[in-house]
Amino acid sequence: MEVFKNVPQTIKYEGKDSDNPLAFKYYNPEEKVGGKTMEEHLRFSVAYWHTLTGDGSDPFGMGTMLRPWDTATDPMELAKARVRAAFEFMSKLGVKYFCFHDRDIAPEGRTLAETNKNLDEIVSLIKELMDETGIKLLWGTANLFSNPRFVHGAATSPNADVFAYAAAQVKKAMEITKELGGENYVFWGGREGYETLLNTDMELEQENFARFLHMAVDYAREIGFEGQFLIEPKPKEPTKHQYDFDAATVISFLKKYDLDKHFKLNIEANHATLAGHTFQHELHVSRINGMLGSVDANQGDLLLGWDTDQFPTNIYETTLAMYEILKNGGLEPGGLNFDAKVRRASFEPVDLFYAHIAGMDAFARGLKVAHKLLESGELEDFISERYKSYRNGIGEKIVKGEVGFKELEDYALNNGKITNVSGRQELLESIVNKYIIEA
Amino acid sequence: MEVFKNVPQTIKYEGKDSDNPLAFKYYNPEEKVGGKTMEEHLRFSVAYWHTLTGDGSDPFGMGTMLRPWDTATDPMELAKARVRAAFEFMSKLGVKYFCFHDRDIAPEGRTLAETNKNLDEIVSLIKELMDETGIKLLWGTANLFSNPRFVHGAATSPNADVFAYAAAQVKKAMEITKELGGENYVFWGGREGYETLLNTDMELEQENFARFLHMAVDYAREIGFEGQFLIEPKPKEPTKHQYDFDAATVISFLKKYDLDKHFKLNIEANHATLAGHTFQHELHVSRINGMLGSVDANQGDLLLGWDTDQFPTNIYETTLAMYEILKNGGLEPGGLNFDAKVRRASFEPVDLFYAHIAGMDAFARGLKVAHKLLESGELEDFISERYKSYRNGIGEKIVKGEVGFKELEDYALNNGKITNVSGRQELLESIVNKYIIEA
Amino acid sequence: MEVFKNVPQTIKYEGKDSDNPLAFKYYNPEEKVGGKTMEEHLRFSVAYWHTLTGDGSDPFGMGTMLRPWDTATDPMELAKARVRAAFEFMSKLGVKYFCFHDRDIAPEGRTLAETNKNLDEIVSLIKELMDETGIKLLWGTANLFSNPRFVHGAATSPNADVFAYAAAQVKKAMEITKELGGENYVFWGGREGYETLLNTDMELEQENFARFLHMAVDYAREIGFEGQFLIEPKPKEPTKHQYDFDAATVISFLKKYDLDKHFKLNIEANHATLAGHTFQHELHVSRINGMLGSVDANQGDLLLGWDTDQFPTNIYETTLAMYEILKNGGLEPGGLNFDAKVRRASFEPVDLFYAHIAGMDAFARGLKVAHKLLESGELEDFISERYKSYRNGIGEKIVKGEVGFKELEDYALNNGKITNVSGRQELLESIVNKYIIEA
Amino acid sequence: MEVFKNVPQTIKYEGKDSDNPLAFKYYNPEEKVGGKTMEEHLRFSVAYWHTLTGDGSDPFGMGTMLRPWDTATDPMELAKARVRAAFEFMSKLGVKYFCFHDRDIAPEGRTLAETNKNLDEIVSLIKELMDETGIKLLWGTANLFSNPRFVHGAATSPNADVFAYAAAQVKKAMEITKELGGENYVFWGGREGYETLLNTDMELEQENFARFLHMAVDYAREIGFEGQFLIEPKPKEPTKHQYDFDAATVISFLKKYDLDKHFKLNIEANHATLAGHTFQHELHVSRINGMLGSVDANQGDLLLGWDTDQFPTNIYETTLAMYEILKNGGLEPGGLNFDAKVRRASFEPVDLFYAHIAGMDAFARGLKVAHKLLESGELEDFISERYKSYRNGIGEKIVKGEVGFKELEDYALNNGKITNVSGRQELLESIVNKYIIEA
Repeated sequence: MEVFKNVPQTIKYEGKDSDNPLAFKYYNPEEKVGGKTMEEHLRFSVAYWHTLTGDGSDPFGMGTMLRPWDTATDPMELAKARVRAAFEFMSKLGVKYFCFHDRDIAPEGRTLAETNKNLDEIVSLIKELMDETGIKLLWGTANLFSNPRFVHGAATSPNADVFAYAAAQVKKAMEITKELGGENYVFWGGREGYETLLNTDMELEQENFARFLHMAVDYAREIGFEGQFLIEPKPKEPTKHQYDFDAATVISFLKKYDLDKHFKLNIEANHATLAGHTFQHELHVSRINGMLGSVDANQGDLLLGWDTDQFPTNIYETTLAMYEILKNGGLEPGGLNFDAKVRRASFEPVDLFYAHIAGMDAFARGLKVAHKLLESGELEDFISERYKSYRNGIGEKIVKGEVGFKELEDYALNNGKITNVSGRQELLESIVNKYIIEA
Repeated sequence: MEVFKNVPQTIKYEGKDSDNPLAFKYYNPEEKVGGKTMEEHLRFSVAYWHTLTGDGSDPFGMGTMLRPWDTATDPMELAKARVRAAFEFMSKLGVKYFCFHDRDIAPEGRTLAETNKNLDEIVSLIKELMDETGIKLLWGTANLFSNPRFVHGAATSPNADVFAYAAAQVKKAMEITKELGGENYVFWGGREGYETLLNTDMELEQENFARFLHMAVDYAREIGFEGQFLIEPKPKEPTKHQYDFDAATVISFLKKYDLDKHFKLNIEANHATLAGHTFQHELHVSRINGMLGSVDANQGDLLLGWDTDQFPTNIYETTLAMYEILKNGGLEPGGLNFDAKVRRASFEPVDLFYAHIAGMDAFARGLKVAHKLLESGELEDFISERYKSYRNGIGEKIVKGEVGFKELEDYALNNGKITNVSGRQELLESIVNKYIIEA
Repeated sequence: MEVFKNVPQTIKYEGKDSDNPLAFKYYNPEEKVGGKTMEEHLRFSVAYWHTLTGDGSDPFGMGTMLRPWDTATDPMELAKARVRAAFEFMSKLGVKYFCFHDRDIAPEGRTLAETNKNLDEIVSLIKELMDETGIKLLWGTANLFSNPRFVHGAATSPNADVFAYAAAQVKKAMEITKELGGENYVFWGGREGYETLLNTDMELEQENFARFLHMAVDYAREIGFEGQFLIEPKPKEPTKHQYDFDAATVISFLKKYDLDKHFKLNIEANHATLAGHTFQHELHVSRINGMLGSVDANQGDLLLGWDTDQFPTNIYETTLAMYEILKNGGLEPGGLNFDAKVRRASFEPVDLFYAHIAGMDAFARGLKVAHKLLESGELEDFISERYKSYRNGIGEKIVKGEVGFKELEDYALNNGKITNVSGRQELLESIVNKYIIEA
Repeated sequence: MEVFKNVPQTIKYEGKDSDNPLAFKYYNPEEKVGGKTMEEHLRFSVAYWHTLTGDGSDPFGMGTMLRPWDTATDPMELAKARVRAAFEFMSKLGVKYFCFHDRDIAPEGRTLAETNKNLDEIVSLIKELMDETGIKLLWGTANLFSNPRFVHGAATSPNADVFAYAAAQVKKAMEITKELGGENYVFWGGREGYETLLNTDMELEQENFARFLHMAVDYAREIGFEGQFLIEPKPKEPTKHQYDFDAATVISFLKKYDLDKHFKLNIEANHATLAGHTFQHELHVSRINGMLGSVDANQGDLLLGWDTDQFPTNIYETTLAMYEILKNGGLEPGGLNFDAKVRRASFEPVDLFYAHIAGMDAFARGLKVAHKLLESGELEDFISERYKSYRNGIGEKIVKGEVGFKELEDYALNNGKITNVSGRQELLESIVNKYIIEA
């Protein structure tokens, strides 16, 4: 039964002159951009929780979303209706990946065993529809933050029973991710942090978190799950302080506990800005550390202090993100997951299309701009020229480790006045503008 | 020649009932708190740059500070007058340590050689006054951020000549720190960061920064400097993004480049809050990683977005800081350096006394409150009880690495309803209040 | 049926040496502070929504609160159980006031008429228990933000039907507030603002908001409701921008639309900090404009960007708030309403007592400190002395309007060097510390 | 003597395909956009302080700017060299307006009389060059914040002598603005605020500020100055809290003290964001209150907490600003003043051209995008449709004041289920993207 009425069977690319709000203006899946198609570059994914399960409630109000599939009163029937709506939505939109938390797709039962049984039933339906449509699972994960049992954390709970429960839940989530051919598995530690240091043993909590991740690595090996493990930084919210604060903090943690070989990062735009960084910064830090794995594509509102999870429409952001992603050689097996929710006031089903189209077009445009920027070399050449002093003379000796403080002092004492060259920030910004408009 | 007139020869402890604004109400240097005197615990230090050299200018206005010693027009005479004022000030205040940057104490000459000669002359005067007064050097450092040559960074400059100059400058600063018996040497990378990623090779810059620190370690070994090396995190300001963002980032960097054995952290309250952390958080993270070395004792204004470097007067902050410091077994050879400046509107010489007294009293009170909190065990016992599930049963097995996901799933499937216990944040906050008022 | 077990029938004042967490250490209702009792000064109120209705859910998780009265499945039975729990709680705690939104106390029915009937039934029970206990209604209000119909605002909705519905709802809320002898009526415009200017007619929305408030004033006159009207500023959350941004904005709005004679402000601590102001600032601005009416007593976390609504435990904040309140001649008919929720992790019923006791003790301490500060005149005398130049000579002429630019230029040209005096911020902060500890 | 070498005599429009960094790509002064030329729409102005006087110093470092005209050691000779450089710069750039503070253009003398004499001499040179080049003065102002005498404020200083001095200074600044044909006169109260409420009589300070502005109005009338008075909001920096916090606060202040007929607002982008608002919000609030007078065109960095005064290059910002300005019917007699400074690292003279070109192109593009958006009516029509319910039926009665709470309750009780329509934020954002790329 079709739930998205009055929407084309397939959202098509109609180009920039189209006035059709249900068509792509910039995203042309087949179009080649430097050897790969747009679709291959962008690997868009729909976030099940926001788009299928989210109801528009916020701390001051109830759900607003009109969701024609939300008619069943039986939780399993509702879950199945959502699955069907999901595949109808993705098929029409032309997105080839999706992501989910275990609890998004199936309701909890009275016991863990029953919950797992519910999951199995839904997973089997999902598998059927995946086969039918060719849509794939970008990543799976476990929701270890919504249920009251996780009030003090999951792997970092002061209660060992909670740790055990979380372990059981991740075990199952990994199994179904494997079953569905998921290409990655994500850890986002939504309650892994603290509310107040007055009651917290941070050292034990972090050790336990590391133990938990090692168990996951071991179990993956055991069952032959070969997807990429990803960890997703966020500095705060829901907890006062989250242990996976930002890319640098997570990399530090992974190194400390000898986990860095097994994990990459899943960078979310809005989590970056909550940590006081640009999205590009977090991508860049991950990339130069060889840890950029996947992206949660959304945007925040820098004048608001919470995770607004807006659909990404700012072309500066998408351009600079794609610039890092292209320099990373792409994201595969990761992708661009729309961890974004339509605004509470955009409550009609068609808004789900408008919002995803807006985000896909913004990233398509960003891809083309970034590609042209890289092709022209305008930024890369500027940087290369800027650091040339490290490619010969005293700079080369520094880089090669041939000099120490004494030799450098000697050099400096005999060197004349130092001449620096302008950083040209304003000119470089106008170059980016040129490409954004003309790409 | 005395420059601080109308101030007692020694600021005395007069206790809480004193109405004398030039006496301590809580700081009693001789008073024992748990086996050590207050003076031994607190190891206060005066920051030369703010207190002797700072003039009260800000981005919108000129200097306001009335400094009776600023009469000389010859830069070296002025530098000497400042040294004498510094020792008069510290002697009257009763602070036993100070800290400086090379450029605070002596003016730059036309050449590096001349600059070094200026430094030597002033260092010799300082040494004399140190011997005379018994005042000691907590740490020295090099100013690698004020001179225009550092416009793009020092060790992270794109210009190798600047790297060389910075190396020469740190070499000299380490030598004079050694000569003055400095107990630590600090690195604060005021321009080691970026203004825009559009023109930045972050990877090379960070590698160069690591090379620079390794050279410093090597040179220390060579000259037999045995002070503690410290690195001071700050997330932003003056640059858009500073590489030493926060404690976790710095620890990550030190580990990555195999520098962690040689460095500890110098945590500054206002830098913590600019990074989105509490002061206590940064101290705690450093402590549990064995990296808490020293403290820059000030406070910020959380409604303002820059480094206000206010004198620390908030007793909640000083209590929680001293709590971490006591749990760290103290800070020695580090200390509590007042990296704080009197407000631009507090421009009279006597305000320097009022401000330091305010800060010293606030930390003395914080020390007593923290000590009593620890002695009573009210917080520690609560925490110990809270995590007791990891000391036997399934929790003990988790901690000992005796179980994996399969065993934990088995446990969870057979475990009944999980019971959590309240985190009691409000009660714990009221306990802290009780100690603050009644300590 | 008693729901708060293992709690004394009355929380007693036991003084600062008490170890009983279920006793007051500083709040002694009968104690006289400058002519009035603490109880008369503080006029504490319980917020029905947080304490009786709140379930601990947040954007990332379900409710956690254990509420022994939440057993009924019938909405009206549940509503009645909450009323009884409320009066048991307030009686035991010794708080004499409460506040509510219409929808906190009674469930919505299928129609507005049915909803109003539900309200009437509950109001009648509340009235009975008020008579029995002597507990009074500080203020009532209408919830115009939770129901999906208010998705685009209430009085500022683009949909006139919503405006009408909101009007009907406020009419009824005013009637029940009057019936219960409510001393104030509050407007908090939780959705009165915008999400994006791209779809907003701000001018019409603000005019409509003013029309709405005029209708309320007219209807109050008509029914003889003589309580104080209050408007509560908040800058953002849930909307991107709320029209009642801060005290200055609200005062401006009230003046523009000729409403300022009918309204005062209800200042909330956490709303102040979200607007970039201190709590004291907002109280001060309201006070000197003759508009300080009542207070929502809580505290925020300045490192987080949303309304955390924590119980107020910071004594600096309570001291400076009480300082403004004492200078205002008190708040009557307003009061100190605990618009604060126990942390999601403080989910046991007894935490409600701990949290309210923590807040009441913090305000009691703040009252005593503020009173002693005012009695001593240490701050007031400093300020008076600081501005004395406006009480004679050229300053007096300025204030009296006897001079203009020409006379002042003449004066300035003939005046010698200007001498300013230090603002003494650090000394003043240490004076506040002295009173906080020793009051 | 030419100081800007290697720069064309006139920066020309070469269109979007030009690779010449010293040409305009989007700003074509003669091009008509809806009846007026770009030059008439945009009324660009150079800010004397940043571009001629600014040296690149920041709180952590000395000046870096290379300014070939800064060779004179005599302050008056330097001042004259700057004037000549200014007119050379503006002539080459093709900007027809400039703005200054009194202290930017001429040095202070030993006495106010001498300072005024210095001013007169420079003003006479400026006048000559204005006549020669046809360049005009957009606005003048007085610097009442840099000199130490203003440490506690100017019109809000606790020292009446400072008030008098400030009055004399503004009198003179108004006179020279008039003499130079200035079209506006601006008040930015850089120190009119407080550092701590502990030492502040806010009420007296605000009354004095109002007295000061009334004196200015009176004096303007007396000398026949007919330029527009403007007041420029900023929330903080340099002071902790500035009285002119934001547009709403300033409008409130002007109304309270009966000044609103005489003043409009000068809105600065970066001041808006420091106050927690978008630039568009502040323009919009000013516009719908009939108070939008002029604009300080720059941009901030929302991840930094201070006034970065960057050149405006973000086309979203310039588009939405121009949208408001077009709806305002333009800014005349105000304009777009580049209150922006090249980054400290962009220290070469040519960067001044690159930066202004970047800003002018960004605003030119913004103008075209905004014009096309308005011409198409896509946003305006959406809004008009959205609020249509207030143009008939119950909505019309509300707007006309024909109904009150009773009639509306009656309506609501009899009205069926309320139907709202999506706000379509994501679709509207994608429409803006379309125009930005395709305009």
